[in-house]
Amino acid sequence: MARIGIVGSQGRMGAALAQAIEAAGHEHSGGVDRDEGDVTELAGRSDALVDFSAPAALQATLDACKAAGIPVLIGTTGLEDEHHAAIDEAAKAIPVLQTGNTSLGVTMLAHLVNEAASRLGDDWDIEIVEMHHRMKVDAPSGTAKLLGEAAAKGRGIDLAANTESGRDGITGKRADGAIGFAALRGGTVAGEHTVYFAGSEERIALTHLAENRMIFARGAVKGASWLLDKDAGRYTMPQVLGL
Amino acid sequence: MARIGIVGSQGRMGAALAQAIEAAGHEHSGGVDRDEGDVTELAGRSDALVDFSAPAALQATLDACKAAGIPVLIGTTGLEDEHHAAIDEAAKAIPVLQTGNTSLGVTMLAHLVNEAASRLGDDWDIEIVEMHHRMKVDAPSGTAKLLGEAAAKGRGIDLAANTESGRDGITGKRADGAIGFAALRGGTVAGEHTVYFAGSEERIALTHLAENRMIFARGAVKGASWLLDKDAGRYTMPQVLGL
Amino acid sequence: MARIGIVGSQGRMGAALAQAIEAAGHEHSGGVDRDEGDVTELAGRSDALVDFSAPAALQATLDACKAAGIPVLIGTTGLEDEHHAAIDEAAKAIPVLQTGNTSLGVTMLAHLVNEAASRLGDDWDIEIVEMHHRMKVDAPSGTAKLLGEAAAKGRGIDLAANTESGRDGITGKRADGAIGFAALRGGTVAGEHTVYFAGSEERIALTHLAENRMIFARGAVKGASWLLDKDAGRYTMPQVLGL
Amino acid sequence: MARIGIVGSQGRMGAALAQAIEAAGHEHSGGVDRDEGDVTELAGRSDALVDFSAPAALQATLDACKAAGIPVLIGTTGLEDEHHAAIDEAAKAIPVLQTGNTSLGVTMLAHLVNEAASRLGDDWDIEIVEMHHRMKVDAPSGTAKLLGEAAAKGRGIDLAANTESGRDGITGKRADGAIGFAALRGGTVAGEHTVYFAGSEERIALTHLAENRMIFARGAVKGASWLLDKDAGRYTMPQVLGL
Repeated sequence: MARIGIVGSQGRMGAALAQAIEAAGHEHSGGVDRDEGDVTELAGRSDALVDFSAPAALQATLDACKAAGIPVLIGTTGLEDEHHAAIDEAAKAIPVLQTGNTSLGVTMLAHLVNEAASRLGDDWDIEIVEMHHRMKVDAPSGTAKLLGEAAAKGRGIDLAANTESGRDGITGKRADGAIGFAALRGGTVAGEHTVYFAGSEERIALTHLAENRMIFARGAVKGASWLLDKDAGRYTMPQVLGL
Repeated sequence: MARIGIVGSQGRMGAALAQAIEAAGHEHSGGVDRDEGDVTELAGRSDALVDFSAPAALQATLDACKAAGIPVLIGTTGLEDEHHAAIDEAAKAIPVLQTGNTSLGVTMLAHLVNEAASRLGDDWDIEIVEMHHRMKVDAPSGTAKLLGEAAAKGRGIDLAANTESGRDGITGKRADGAIGFAALRGGTVAGEHTVYFAGSEERIALTHLAENRMIFARGAVKGASWLLDKDAGRYTMPQVLGL
Repeated sequence: MARIGIVGSQGRMGAALAQAIEAAGHEHSGGVDRDEGDVTELAGRSDALVDFSAPAALQATLDACKAAGIPVLIGTTGLEDEHHAAIDEAAKAIPVLQTGNTSLGVTMLAHLVNEAASRLGDDWDIEIVEMHHRMKVDAPSGTAKLLGEAAAKGRGIDLAANTESGRDGITGKRADGAIGFAALRGGTVAGEHTVYFAGSEERIALTHLAENRMIFARGAVKGASWLLDKDAGRYTMPQVLGL
Repeated sequence: MARIGIVGSQGRMGAALAQAIEAAGHEHSGGVDRDEGDVTELAGRSDALVDFSAPAALQATLDACKAAGIPVLIGTTGLEDEHHAAIDEAAKAIPVLQTGNTSLGVTMLAHLVNEAASRLGDDWDIEIVEMHHRMKVDAPSGTAKLLGEAAAKGRGIDLAANTESGRDGITGKRADGAIGFAALRGGTVAGEHTVYFAGSEERIALTHLAENRMIFARGAVKGASWLLDKDAGRYTMPQVLGL
């Protein structure tokens, strides 16, 4: 039993996280959000934090966890290089797990994508399409990027230098070796991702479909509690799940 | 039996069109392309032309068909307002059919999309995703736009004013009433289109899948021969197929 | 505000129905199930019943509603000819709505399937595949049959005489004009249905995906309250939704 | 350059195989089918045979290859235990490769299915659905069985003892640990297979889609020529493709 606090408690994941903390037999030590609460105080009365808020809140969360000497799981999407640098810095002092997706299924899918990308020749074009609810404000999703990273690693290329995202207008033909991204938005979709490997006259499509947000909340709580007895450092979901 | 000529004979549709013309019992009266042939001479020895070339070639094709007094089917994609105006002008003198897609299945799908859009409330978000081979140079596809038009018409809105295409980066939440477009490219895919209606906790997805380009060539030849005895005017594929 | 009672209150839909009744501003007048409660008493204190139990319970539900003079919505699946005859008989005295699916999306999909089947030639083979959670005990689903009926009606054929369901082993080639059914079971899937129209080198696929059971409960409550002021007779979901 | 002969030359794969043999720079040494030709003579003038005919023809093909001392690739579907025993017996004398699918993509997919099945717990239900053209006479497809074997091996269970195929009627709830099969038939579909792993509130779907039969013919020719310098024994497609 651990005391786990929530950063981003008013967001779409907030209620699911609170429910998942209690369902897993832990204690919900409280939540903070943009408008209310003090993250330093929250960290002070918690054994771990989970942060599903916004990039702008990240530094304060990391500082609070370092001050309290507790681990933190970061599920925020839309992080830039500077945020990753801040996470690396914090990971010198405390255990940190940052991930674009906390579900077992997506973690498994990323493993399969890496496997396929490493074994199929680069004449199999890689495309990633995702669909999320109408309120999502960024594209591609953090999970799509995570899957893109898995593909790029499998193929031994740099993702940023090989991304084709948001095609529109006269694009010219597909760049050799590109990894393409496309984003659909609508309804209440919790999250669907498909990675295509499109070869000559045949295709492989690897898909994950989330029925609702509880799978992410459960995985996040599992990740946070897994961090409790770890040394300082930066960890990943495959480690949590033993993949 | 009619003599049918091809504009864009070296392109991806060229060989399929030549085969489809003969399979339908017509005579292939020749082809022209950017680098070779004279479209005025071709029109002079033909009963109809089919044009699957490029927007830049459109005016010459229309002029040649007007001079020869023969009908023309336009399957070129990437047309702008000025091209549509040129087609409307030519249609005062000759029968012209312009379409983003000549297959029976897509024509049927557009009908179903119109039907669904006109009956489902605007809390059902409309998204259109398409996948084509790696050589395609524009996005979204002409067929995706055709399906978007069918949806916009069904909902009684203007497509251009309600398009969200190529989402990438911080997009903000989905605009109310938007019709979204996304494009995938890879392998040898002949053409796949899905129109989503994403409602509250449920979704409808309407898909067309082409196994190869022959279906488009067959439909184009069917359209061109259907035009032979028509009066001057602008026609559509649903008319050809009696939908 | 109406008092609505539930037959099958311990089943998978029971809790969702109770929640939907209250969410719609009605009063939940109680529930009965195989093991507990008296349906006659329940009908006596209700303005309408919804029955999502089992075929064996149908006659008692109909008798209780007739005795109380109240309408009933039947969402039970696995009904045979004898059950439909009993419903027709009851509908002489009270309003009855029986349906394989109470969602707006499925009702819309059935309309589109009918439309496509009536306009595409019978060289477009019709196949229906559905996926449901691992606890479902019958196949194909009631919704799959409902979609099959919509296709058969559109094509002007008798469904029972043209069904190919559960192919396994040496089946021989597909019968001309058949409507095929296939059932997938697994996980917690709330319900997915796809109707294929497979033509020569092209395919149309029409899909409905339910994210959870609440859409069915909401639709059932909407149907039951729509019945309140109706004359005796047998009604359908498209009537409720004005399609 | 090798001389490669075809058993089943009049079947759906016959023409594609002839084309693929020549496209790969080999010589097409002739074909036999039920009604015509002598397989012993064909083997006598060939360096290898490919057999895509029917189970009933298998023994004659194996005998002819043994007599000629040449390798054989068997792509016939619908094989029973007795046929596999005959193949094992022949493999003592000559190189034999028997497979339900000769495409690179399917071979890759089977590898991914094995990987997922071995790492996901058995609370992830496995379902396999396939779609093929309207002329196919058996179900499930040989490829579906191949994927089922990959899943069963990954999970460490016996496929035959855990198969649920062709669900229809009152089936009861899904058996724990079952691997389900469903078959769709229609149009001209060259072959589509999806393996689902359906967990609690999330799903993974792994799909292969063949645009046409040439991919199978190319793979078969690649397999037959790979066998040319091998010792007697029974081989598999992953070995050919170095997976």
